Amino acid sequence: MTTGNRLVAVDWGTSSLRGALLDADGRVLDEQSHPRGILGVAPGGFAAVFDELFGPWMRAEDGTRCLVSGMAGSRQGWVEAPYCPCPAGLDDVRAHIIDIDSGQASRVSIVPGLSHEHDGVPDVMRGEEVQIFGAMTLTGLRDALFVLPGTHNKWARVEGGRVTGFRTSMTGEFYALLAQRSILARTIDAEAPLDEAAFRDGVARAANGAGLLHNAFGARTLALFERRSAGALASYLSGVLIGEELRAQPLQVQGPLVLVGAPQLAARYALALQSLGVASRTLGAEATWAGLHALASR
Amino acid sequence: MTTGNRLVAVDWGTSSLRGALLDADGRVLDEQSHPRGILGVAPGGFAAVFDELFGPWMRAEDGTRCLVSGMAGSRQGWVEAPYCPCPAGLDDVRAHIIDIDSGQASRVSIVPGLSHEHDGVPDVMRGEEVQIFGAMTLTGLRDALFVLPGTHNKWARVEGGRVTGFRTSMTGEFYALLAQRSILARTIDAEAPLDEAAFRDGVARAANGAGLLHNAFGARTLALFERRSAGALASYLSGVLIGEELRAQPLQVQGPLVLVGAPQLAARYALALQSLGVASRTLGAEATWAGLHALASR
Repeated sequence: MTTGNRLVAVDWGTSSLRGALLDADGRVLDEQSHPRGILGVAPGGFAAVFDELFGPWMRAEDGTRCLVSGMAGSRQGWVEAPYCPCPAGLDDVRAHIIDIDSGQASRVSIVPGLSHEHDGVPDVMRGEEVQIFGAMTLTGLRDALFVLPGTHNKWARVEGGRVTGFRTSMTGEFYALLAQRSILARTIDAEAPLDEAAFRDGVARAANGAGLLHNAFGARTLALFERRSAGALASYLSGVLIGEELRAQPLQVQGPLVLVGAPQLAARYALALQSLGVASRTLGAEATWAGLHALASR
Repeated sequence: MTTGNRLVAVDWGTSSLRGALLDADGRVLDEQSHPRGILGVAPGGFAAVFDELFGPWMRAEDGTRCLVSGMAGSRQGWVEAPYCPCPAGLDDVRAHIIDIDSGQASRVSIVPGLSHEHDGVPDVMRGEEVQIFGAMTLTGLRDALFVLPGTHNKWARVEGGRVTGFRTSMTGEFYALLAQRSILARTIDAEAPLDEAAFRDGVARAANGAGLLHNAFGARTLALFERRSAGALASYLSGVLIGEELRAQPLQVQGPLVLVGAPQLAARYALALQSLGVASRTLGAEATWAGLHALASR
């Protein structure tokens, strides 16, 4: 698969921005990342930030184009790229790509996110769809469950090479709120390294059916009764949350389960899945570049 | 039921303090409340605060005694009163009451909280046990499910007049964190009055089995797609949380369900229970005074 030209691949998120210069075959020639997420860019300021960071790559070789994924396509971003509804394969997403009139010869385009409706309530992703397409390309899988841990995790079902449905879980945000802002914060050391045994105990606890609102309180009472250290309780709480996320997912899917995300967080999911008897494999940031390259290819 | 003497009944919580002067038959002669919870009292300063606020009542009539319930009996309170384990009736709790050496002729005593263990994880309450005993006295019920909404809600099973088990849910704290500190805060008006239809929709949504981590995100996407107003979304989120709490409770109990708590919050629980076909009745602050009077009586 080739684009015929170089591609500047950009993942422009809420709080950070990553970019890679890819050759026609998708090989990474150069990479950069900056703490300049869309929340730090003034309205109307996107083109200037883009030119400052990526202009040199865009002008280095004729015909270089750029694809931007992530929150840059949201209403608060550069140009709004309306969501592509599921089921959605590469061609469906390509048809929703929005070109930006950047006043330059080079083409800059925005990749839309995906939307999916469950019983009258919409769900959305922006950026993760590119990781999913990249993971499909890298693994060759066309039927699988892709799990993308993060602040707002996505579980996406892929059938015949198309995303047929997905579900967001606010697990990462709940963990940050509980560990830093709730009563649990008083007796938890959120900076401690992972305590695998405590984490597994939390995962097992989540399976009791008593619900997250109750099980989270166990991280408080175990401290009150001095049954666990502050470091172990951070891992326990993480296990309770990830266990709750797994409890509520339809894990009985056709095909394998692929984790895509930051290595440390993905490792926690792999551990939790393993304790439930579910095997998984893990991909990292390379999935984003592979996905943007696949979308740019004809 | 009579104490033979006047009773100063005090509910000393984390952020506030309420007191009532009761006659020998438990009738309220006077009441006061202050924003002087235990977090606002310096270590060693409890006796002085108590004397300032309640000394006049204590000295007005010989033989007046005082019972203090709530967080004043915690490790961070006046004197630690170790938890009384379940099952626990009035006599069990009485046997765990701690007298304070206040240097005065009048007796001041601290009521212990209750503890209960589920599968190796303890659960605790402090103050709610008094409301439960009061609600038993006021209703005459000796077999019922008592539900006490608040920051950390308690569901207590009472059989034969004893609390045989209970469960804490952090529903109130989760709501505050999500409505004020999470991404949902951007598109929710937490000050809006209750929107009953949106609240019921949230309760119904929680029953879908997809879990709170996912269902809470619906309060974000419904705003993104402009399907609900910011005020309605606060009620929807409240419904999702209370619905999740109800979903995870064993509602099939012997006897009736009694709500004890602040009227507006209790009304939400009554509404949510009603939408699930469960009848309830509600008691308010009077349960605390009735409970302390029952504990003081012989």
